[in-house]
Amino acid sequence: MTSPSQQRPGGVDGADATDATDATDAPDGRTADLGFARLDLDRAARTGDPEVVFGQGKTPAQVVAILRRLHAQHPDRAVLATRLAPEALAALAEELPQAALHPVARAATLGPLPTPAGRVLVVAAGTSDAPVAAEAELTVRVHGAGVERIDDVGVAGLHRLLAVRERLEAADCLVVVAGMEGALPSVVGGLVGVPLVACPTSVGYGASLGGVTALLAMLSSCAPGVSVVNVDNGYGAGVFAARVARRAAPRP
Amino acid sequence: MTSPSQQRPGGVDGADATDATDATDAPDGRTADLGFARLDLDRAARTGDPEVVFGQGKTPAQVVAILRRLHAQHPDRAVLATRLAPEALAALAEELPQAALHPVARAATLGPLPTPAGRVLVVAAGTSDAPVAAEAELTVRVHGAGVERIDDVGVAGLHRLLAVRERLEAADCLVVVAGMEGALPSVVGGLVGVPLVACPTSVGYGASLGGVTALLAMLSSCAPGVSVVNVDNGYGAGVFAARVARRAAPRP
Amino acid sequence: MTSPSQQRPGGVDGADATDATDATDAPDGRTADLGFARLDLDRAARTGDPEVVFGQGKTPAQVVAILRRLHAQHPDRAVLATRLAPEALAALAEELPQAALHPVARAATLGPLPTPAGRVLVVAAGTSDAPVAAEAELTVRVHGAGVERIDDVGVAGLHRLLAVRERLEAADCLVVVAGMEGALPSVVGGLVGVPLVACPTSVGYGASLGGVTALLAMLSSCAPGVSVVNVDNGYGAGVFAARVARRAAPRP
Amino acid sequence: MTSPSQQRPGGVDGADATDATDATDAPDGRTADLGFARLDLDRAARTGDPEVVFGQGKTPAQVVAILRRLHAQHPDRAVLATRLAPEALAALAEELPQAALHPVARAATLGPLPTPAGRVLVVAAGTSDAPVAAEAELTVRVHGAGVERIDDVGVAGLHRLLAVRERLEAADCLVVVAGMEGALPSVVGGLVGVPLVACPTSVGYGASLGGVTALLAMLSSCAPGVSVVNVDNGYGAGVFAARVARRAAPRP
Amino acid sequence: MTSPSQQRPGGVDGADATDATDATDAPDGRTADLGFARLDLDRAARTGDPEVVFGQGKTPAQVVAILRRLHAQHPDRAVLATRLAPEALAALAEELPQAALHPVARAATLGPLPTPAGRVLVVAAGTSDAPVAAEAELTVRVHGAGVERIDDVGVAGLHRLLAVRERLEAADCLVVVAGMEGALPSVVGGLVGVPLVACPTSVGYGASLGGVTALLAMLSSCAPGVSVVNVDNGYGAGVFAARVARRAAPRP
Amino acid sequence: MTSPSQQRPGGVDGADATDATDATDAPDGRTADLGFARLDLDRAARTGDPEVVFGQGKTPAQVVAILRRLHAQHPDRAVLATRLAPEALAALAEELPQAALHPVARAATLGPLPTPAGRVLVVAAGTSDAPVAAEAELTVRVHGAGVERIDDVGVAGLHRLLAVRERLEAADCLVVVAGMEGALPSVVGGLVGVPLVACPTSVGYGASLGGVTALLAMLSSCAPGVSVVNVDNGYGAGVFAARVARRAAPRP
Amino acid sequence: MTSPSQQRPGGVDGADATDATDATDAPDGRTADLGFARLDLDRAARTGDPEVVFGQGKTPAQVVAILRRLHAQHPDRAVLATRLAPEALAALAEELPQAALHPVARAATLGPLPTPAGRVLVVAAGTSDAPVAAEAELTVRVHGAGVERIDDVGVAGLHRLLAVRERLEAADCLVVVAGMEGALPSVVGGLVGVPLVACPTSVGYGASLGGVTALLAMLSSCAPGVSVVNVDNGYGAGVFAARVARRAAPRP
Amino acid sequence: MTSPSQQRPGGVDGADATDATDATDAPDGRTADLGFARLDLDRAARTGDPEVVFGQGKTPAQVVAILRRLHAQHPDRAVLATRLAPEALAALAEELPQAALHPVARAATLGPLPTPAGRVLVVAAGTSDAPVAAEAELTVRVHGAGVERIDDVGVAGLHRLLAVRERLEAADCLVVVAGMEGALPSVVGGLVGVPLVACPTSVGYGASLGGVTALLAMLSSCAPGVSVVNVDNGYGAGVFAARVARRAAPRP
Repeated sequence: MTSPSQQRPGGVDGADATDATDATDAPDGRTADLGFARLDLDRAARTGDPEVVFGQGKTPAQVVAILRRLHAQHPDRAVLATRLAPEALAALAEELPQAALHPVARAATLGPLPTPAGRVLVVAAGTSDAPVAAEAELTVRVHGAGVERIDDVGVAGLHRLLAVRERLEAADCLVVVAGMEGALPSVVGGLVGVPLVACPTSVGYGASLGGVTALLAMLSSCAPGVSVVNVDNGYGAGVFAARVARRAAPRP
Repeated sequence: MTSPSQQRPGGVDGADATDATDATDAPDGRTADLGFARLDLDRAARTGDPEVVFGQGKTPAQVVAILRRLHAQHPDRAVLATRLAPEALAALAEELPQAALHPVARAATLGPLPTPAGRVLVVAAGTSDAPVAAEAELTVRVHGAGVERIDDVGVAGLHRLLAVRERLEAADCLVVVAGMEGALPSVVGGLVGVPLVACPTSVGYGASLGGVTALLAMLSSCAPGVSVVNVDNGYGAGVFAARVARRAAPRP
Repeated sequence: MTSPSQQRPGGVDGADATDATDATDAPDGRTADLGFARLDLDRAARTGDPEVVFGQGKTPAQVVAILRRLHAQHPDRAVLATRLAPEALAALAEELPQAALHPVARAATLGPLPTPAGRVLVVAAGTSDAPVAAEAELTVRVHGAGVERIDDVGVAGLHRLLAVRERLEAADCLVVVAGMEGALPSVVGGLVGVPLVACPTSVGYGASLGGVTALLAMLSSCAPGVSVVNVDNGYGAGVFAARVARRAAPRP
Repeated sequence: MTSPSQQRPGGVDGADATDATDATDAPDGRTADLGFARLDLDRAARTGDPEVVFGQGKTPAQVVAILRRLHAQHPDRAVLATRLAPEALAALAEELPQAALHPVARAATLGPLPTPAGRVLVVAAGTSDAPVAAEAELTVRVHGAGVERIDDVGVAGLHRLLAVRERLEAADCLVVVAGMEGALPSVVGGLVGVPLVACPTSVGYGASLGGVTALLAMLSSCAPGVSVVNVDNGYGAGVFAARVARRAAPRP
Repeated sequence: MTSPSQQRPGGVDGADATDATDATDAPDGRTADLGFARLDLDRAARTGDPEVVFGQGKTPAQVVAILRRLHAQHPDRAVLATRLAPEALAALAEELPQAALHPVARAATLGPLPTPAGRVLVVAAGTSDAPVAAEAELTVRVHGAGVERIDDVGVAGLHRLLAVRERLEAADCLVVVAGMEGALPSVVGGLVGVPLVACPTSVGYGASLGGVTALLAMLSSCAPGVSVVNVDNGYGAGVFAARVARRAAPRP
Repeated sequence: MTSPSQQRPGGVDGADATDATDATDAPDGRTADLGFARLDLDRAARTGDPEVVFGQGKTPAQVVAILRRLHAQHPDRAVLATRLAPEALAALAEELPQAALHPVARAATLGPLPTPAGRVLVVAAGTSDAPVAAEAELTVRVHGAGVERIDDVGVAGLHRLLAVRERLEAADCLVVVAGMEGALPSVVGGLVGVPLVACPTSVGYGASLGGVTALLAMLSSCAPGVSVVNVDNGYGAGVFAARVARRAAPRP
Repeated sequence: MTSPSQQRPGGVDGADATDATDATDAPDGRTADLGFARLDLDRAARTGDPEVVFGQGKTPAQVVAILRRLHAQHPDRAVLATRLAPEALAALAEELPQAALHPVARAATLGPLPTPAGRVLVVAAGTSDAPVAAEAELTVRVHGAGVERIDDVGVAGLHRLLAVRERLEAADCLVVVAGMEGALPSVVGGLVGVPLVACPTSVGYGASLGGVTALLAMLSSCAPGVSVVNVDNGYGAGVFAARVARRAAPRP
Repeated sequence: MTSPSQQRPGGVDGADATDATDATDAPDGRTADLGFARLDLDRAARTGDPEVVFGQGKTPAQVVAILRRLHAQHPDRAVLATRLAPEALAALAEELPQAALHPVARAATLGPLPTPAGRVLVVAAGTSDAPVAAEAELTVRVHGAGVERIDDVGVAGLHRLLAVRERLEAADCLVVVAGMEGALPSVVGGLVGVPLVACPTSVGYGASLGGVTALLAMLSSCAPGVSVVNVDNGYGAGVFAARVARRAAPRP
C-alpha cells in the first residue's frame, strides 16, 4: 500500500491510483491478497462459515472483486455481501449477473443456498424495521438454517403478537427486531423460553438516540435469557441464530 | 416480504421491486395488509383514536396509500399523517386533492374534523418552535378537542406571558413547547394548576445537544405537575392533551 | 442568612448555628419566613394545591417546622412531606403525633385528606418499584383524587396485565411505574386510550444507568399519548394525575 | 399495600410495618401473593424455567420467604436466588439449612439440580471477573445444562487461550466474561464458530465507565455471531446459554 | 517527595509519613514550599488576588498550614479556604482561633476583609442552594466587592422575583444560583441588562444528572449575556463577579 | 398561524404560504407582529440593548424583514443579525444596501455603531476559530464597547501569548476563544486578573465531541474567575463582555 | 481581520473578500503572517519538527499558500499537509507539481524526506482502517524515522498476527490502528514489550459511537504500557512514534 | 473454583471458604496457580517486565500471597503491587517486612530496584495529583529507568513551568499528570519535542466528570505528539515511559 519511501517525488502515490486488482493467494492458501484487502480463506475451516463482505465504506468495484473471489473459494455454498449502497447493487447486477440481489436487505448472495437445518423465526416490531429484519432473515438462510418472518407485531397492538404465540414456541431460536423503546423482546421473552436474540434498530428520533435507547432497554430486559447485538446489526443476529438453530436437536 | 428461499437465482428479489400495492383486509377485519405495512384497524375501537401515519422514512406513495386506506376505514372522521417531507405533501396534493395540507406542521388530514370537546392551549417559546407547536395544535383538533395557540412568549420577555395568565388558567390542558434551555414549562407551571404537558424542541446548538438539554430540564422542573414528551414530539403532546381535555368536565 | 460583613471576627457565623426557628409571616401574607426557608403560602390560591415539603437534604427539625407551618396555613386539608429519611419520620412521630406516616412511600401527611374526585389507577411493574408507586398513590389522594393500585404486572408475565384491562379502562388517568427497560407504559398505552403518565424508576443495574434507560425508553414509546416524569418521581406523576382526574367529567 | 384511604389518622400505615407474611395462592394457581410480592408460579409452564429470586433490594426475610415458596412449588427442581448480600446468605444458612450457598457467586439454590443436558463452557478473562463467572456457571447448572469453567485467560497472555482451543470447540454454547476493554469475546469468536454469549463486567476504572466500555466493545465486536448481555449479568448469560445447550443435538 | 531511589529498603517511604511541615520560601520569594504543596505567593501581584485554599482532598493539618502561611504573606487582607469538611473547620477553630468560620458556606477566612467596592447581588432559587450561594457571597466579600443576597426566588413563584426587580437592576454584577432545571438565569437575564454569572448546583435527582442538566440549560439560555461557571462553583462565580463589580464605575 | 379549525378543506393552509409580511405594531408599542415572529421592541428599554436577529433557521426574506423593522425602531443605533447563511447575506446586500456585511462573522449590521466605551480584547487560539472570534468582536462593537483582537496565540506556541501580556492586562474584559482541548483560558486566567469570558468552539474531531470537550475543560479551569458561554457562541460572549466593559471605570 | 470600527458603511468587510495573500514575516523571524494565518516558524527550533498543515476547514488556496511558505522556510526537509479534501489535492497537483500526493492518506508532502532513524511498525486491524494507517505511516517518515506496515491482522483471525510476532518485536515503537471494539492493541501489548501507541478509528456503527468505543477500550486495555491518541489521529500517533524511534539506541 | 456439580447439598461451597492458598506451578513453568489467581510467570520473558499486582478488589492476604510468589520467581528484580488499600499496606508491613512501602503512591515493592537506564521526568500540575504522580514515578523505577519529578507547575502559574524548560528538554520521555481541565500536556508539548505521555487524574468536580474531561482534553491536544493513558493510571504511564527511556540512545 502507500509506501512513502518508494513513491516518485512530485507524483501521485502509485498504489493509490487503483483499488481492485486480481487476487493473489498466499502460499499456505489461508489468505488471498487483493491489493486493497487480505481475505481470510481459512475462516470456514475454523468457524464453519466463510468470510462475509461488509460493504459499507467499500467501492462497488471492491465489492464485486471480493464477492467473486470468495465465490471461487466456496463454489458450492452461497457467499454474502451486506450493507450495499445502490451503486454496489447496480455493479453486481452488471458484473455478476448470476448473483441474487436483495434491495430491501441491502445485500447480495452468490452461489447456492445450503440445505436449511433448524428453524429461526425473525419477529419485527414495525415496518421501518424491515431492512434490518430482512438482513437477519437472509443471513440465517446463508448460514444454513431455515427461517420465517413475522412483521408489524409491535407492543402497542398486543393481539397481533398473542395470535402467533405458537409459532414463537416452535422456533429453535428467535431474532426480535425493534426500534424506539425496544420493548418487544421483553414481551416475547416472557411468553416463551426459546433462546432469543434481540436486535435494536435506529428507528426513532430524539430520546431514541439513534437506536441506543432500544439497545440499552433490551440489555436491561426484565425477561430472562435475552441476549443482544449492536444497533441495526441484522447480520450479527442472523449468524448467531443460525448457529443455534442448525445445532438444535430436531423437534417433533 | 423478502423470502430468500423463494427468490429466483440470479435476479432481483420480486417483493422488493414495488412498495405500494392495494390493501388486503385480514379476515377478522382488525388488520389491513398493504404489502409494505399492516394497519391496525382495531385501534380506534380499543383506544378511541385511529392509527396515524408516521411519515418519516416512508415513500410518498406509501403515505398516500396508507392515508387513503385509513380514510376508507374512518370516513366520518379525519385521519392524520405527520412528519411529511415536501415530496409527500406534493404527492398528497396530486393524488388526494380533498386532503387538507399543513406545510408548517409538515402534516396532512383527510376527512372531517370531529366536533371539539374541551379546551387545549398550545404555548410556544419562540418562532423556531413553530413547526412543533403547529403539529401539536393540529393533532389536538384531529383527536377531538378544541385548541388555541399563543406563540413567542419565551421567558426572556416575561411580560408577554404574564399578560395571558387568564387564558392559561381557562384551559383544560396546556401544551408548552420550548427549545434551548426549556425553562418555559417551569414558569407556566408555577402560575397555574392546569395539567401541563411539556414538549422540548431541537432548537438550539452546542450545549443544547439537539433538544436533550431542554428535555432533561423539563423533566427536572421545580414546578409540580409537569409531564414531558420526546423532543419535537408535538404529535404525542397533542394526543395526550386532547385525551385530557375531551374528558374534562365542562367549566363555566 | 450568612452575611459576612456582619460576622464577628474570629467566631462562628451566627445564622449558621441554628436551622429551625419560628415562622415569621411576610406582610402580604403570601410568604412565611422560617429563617432557613421562605414558604410560598400563596401557591394554593394560584394553582389549587399548597406547597409540599421536599424532605431530601433537609434536617428532621426543618421538616417538622415546615410541615407544622403549612398545616397551620391549611388546617382543613392534608399537607404532604416526601423523600423523608427514617430520622425525619421518627422526628415527626415524636413531634407531630397527629401526622400519618407512610414508611414505604417515605412520606407523611398532616390534616384530613380531601374528598376524592375522579379515579386514578397506579400500575407498577415490579415489587422493587413499590416505594415510587406508593409515593404516587399517596400524592394522588392528598391532591384530591381517588386512587387504586395494581402491582407486579410486569411485561414478562403478560397474563396478569391482560386480566385487569377493564380496570385500566375505567380510570380517568393512569400512572404507570416501571424500572429496567421501562416497557410497561407502551404495552398499557396500546391497550387503552386513557391519559397515561409514565414514571421510570431507578430499579436495575449496568445498562439501566440508574433509571435513565427506562426514562429514555418511555419517552420513545411507540404507543401514542404517553407522557413522562423524572426518574423515581412518584410525587410529580401523582400531582399530574390528580389534576387530570379531579377535573374529569364523571363517568357512568 | 399502602392504601392511604384506609390508614388510621395519626399512626403508622399498617401494611408498611411488616414485610414478610405467609404466602396466599391465587385461585387459578398461577400466582402466589406474599404480601410484598406476587410470584409468577406459571412461568415454568410457559417458558420451561421457574421464577428466580433477584435478591438485590430485598430484605433477608423476603429472600427466605420467596425461596421457600418457590421450592414448595417446584420441590423436584432446584430454585435459585441471586445477588445476595452477606446478610441474606446468613439468613438462608439459619432458616433454610438445606439450601446450598455459593458465596463467590453471591447466590443460593434450594432443591436438587436437574440432570445436565448439553455442554456450556464459561470462560473468564481475569480473577476479578470471578463473581460474575461463578453466577453464570451456577445459573447454567440450575437451568439444566452441563457446565465447565476456564479462568484467567485474558488476551494479554494469549498462549493460555490458544492452549484450550479444543475445549472451546467442544462446547454447545460459550459464555465469555471480561471487564476493562472486553476484548476476549472477539478473540474467542475468531477461533471457533460456537454460539457465544459475551458478558461484560464492571471490573476497571476511569475510561472503563463501570463496565459500559466493555459492553460497547463487545457489541462492536469484529467477530461474527457474538451476542451480549448486561454488565455483570452472569445470570442472564447463564439462562441463555443453558437454553441453547440443552436443546443442542448430542455430539460425538 | 517520594523518591524511590532514596528510600530505605524494607521501610516506609519517609516523605510519606508526614503531611504538614514548616514553610520554606523560594529564593525569589514567589513560591513557598510546604513539603506537600508549593504556594504561588506571586499570584496577588500578577492577578490582584492571593491564592485560595481549595480544601477538598486536603487534611485538616494541611488546611491549617496553608491558611497560616498565606495569612503571613498577606497580613492586611483576608485569605480564604473553601470546601472545608467539618473536621477541617474544627481544626481551624482550635489552631487558628482568630479565623472566621462559615459553616453553611463550608469556608473560613483569616485577616481583615477589604473595603468593599461596587455591588454584587447573589440570587438563589431554593433553600437547598444555600451552601453554594453562601460560598459565592463570602468569596465576593473576600475579593473586595460589596454583596447582598436574595434567596428562594425560584421561577415556580415568579411574584417573589418580580418584587425585587429594582434590586437586580441596581447591581454591578449578578450571581444567579439554581439547581434542577436551572431556569432562573434566563428569567433574570430577560428582566435586566446587568452582567450575569449563572452558577448551577447539584440539587435535584434523576434527569438532573448531578447538576449537569442545570449547567447545560444555563449554557443554552435564550437570554443574551449569560455566562456560566462549573456545578456548585460558588467560589468561581464570586471571584468573577467581584472582579467585575470592583472595576465598575460608581453609579448614583 | 396554522388554525386548523379555519382552514379550507382540501386546500393548503393559507398562513403557511407566505413567510414575510409587513410589520404590525401592538397597541402598547412593546411588540411588533410580523406574522411569522413577534419582536420584543421593549427589550432595549428593559436591558439596554435591542433584540438581535438570530439568523439560523430563518429564511433570507425573514432576516431582511426583521432587520428592517428593528432598524426602524432604533434608527440611531446599529442593529445586528447573526448566524447568516450566504443566501441571507446576499439578500441583505440586495434589499438593504446600506447594511454592513461581515462574511467571516456570518453577520450583518444596520445603522451607526455606538460610541465605544471601555476596552474588550478578543483572544483566539487558532485560525479555525476565526468565525467565532469575529462574531464576538462585532457583537462587542454593536453593544457599545471598544474592541481589539489577537489571533493565533494557542498554547502550543506560548511565546506569542507572553508577548502580549500587557495588552491582556489593559483590557476591561477578555473574551478567550478556543477549540480542541480549550486550554487557552486557563493560561490567560493565570497571567492576569481581568474578568475573562471563555468561548469554546467546535473546532476539532473525535474526542473533541463537537466542542463539548473544550466547553467542559473551560468549566473545569484551574484558573479562578473564568466564566463560560455555549459552544461557538461568540455573540453571547460579546454581549457579556460589552456589558462589563462599558460599565467599567475609566483607567489611566 | 474583521475590524468593525474601520469598515465602510454599507459595504462588504474588505478583509473577508480574500483568503490567501502573500506571506509577511514578523521582524524576529519566528512568525509568518499570511493574513488568514500566522505560521509558527520557530517550532522546528523548539521541538525539532516544523509546523504541519491541518487541512480540515481550510480552502485549497490556503493549503497551497501555507505549504509553499513552510517549504520556503525548510527547503531541505519535507513539510506535510494532512486531512486534505480531493479539491485540495487537485489544487496542489496544479500549483505545486513538485509535491508528492498521497490520496489514501489524504495528505501531501513537499521537499525531500529525511534519512530515517529507527524503526516504527504500523499495524492495522482492517482494510477500512487504511486511511488512518497510511496517515500514520507517512507522518513517521516525514518526522525522520523508518517505517513498515502490516494490514488486516484483526483479532478475529489471530493466526495472521502470531505469524508476524518477530516483526513486532524488532520495532522501536509500534502504532496499532483499529476501529470497532479496538481489541488489537491489547493483544499486541500482551505479545511484546515494545512501546505501543494505539490509534482508534471511527470504523463501525451503532455502539461503536463513531470511534469512541474503540478509544475507551484502548484506554482500558489490560495490557500494560499502551498509550492512546485521538480517534482517526494517525498523524498524532505518527509524530509520537517517530520521536520515540529516532531517539532509540540502535539494535543489532 | 465454584463447581456446583461437586458441592455438598445444604452446605457452603468449599472453594469459597478460603481465598489464599499456597502456589502450585503449572508443568511448563509459565503459570502459577494460587487457587484464586493464575500468575503469568512467562510475562517477563515475553515482554521484558514481570507481572504486577493490581491491588484493587483483592484482599490483603491475596496481595501478600501474590507479591511473595512473584518475588520468588524474580528474586533479583523488584516486583510491584499497586492500588493498595491501607489494610493491604499494613498486612505487607507485617507479613513481608522486607518490602518497601510507598503510602502516597499506594504501592509496595519487593526486591532490589534495577539499575536505571535513561531519564524519565514526571511533571504534575497540582498537589492533589500527587498519588498518581507518585505511582508513575515508582513504576518507572521498578521498570528500569531513571526518574525525576516536578510538582505544582499547573498552567495557572506559568512562570514555574518556564523555569524548568531545560529539565523538560533533557528527558528521554515525559509523563505529564493533571486533573481538572488537563491543559498542562498541551503547554509542555508546545515547549519541547520529547515524547510525552499525558496522564489525566480524577481531581476536580462537576464538569470534570471524574477525570473524563481531562482525558478528553488531553486526547484533543493541539500540541503534536501527545499520547494518553486512562484516568489515574500512573502505573500505565510509568510502564510506557520506562520502556521508551531505557531504549533511548544515551545523550551527552
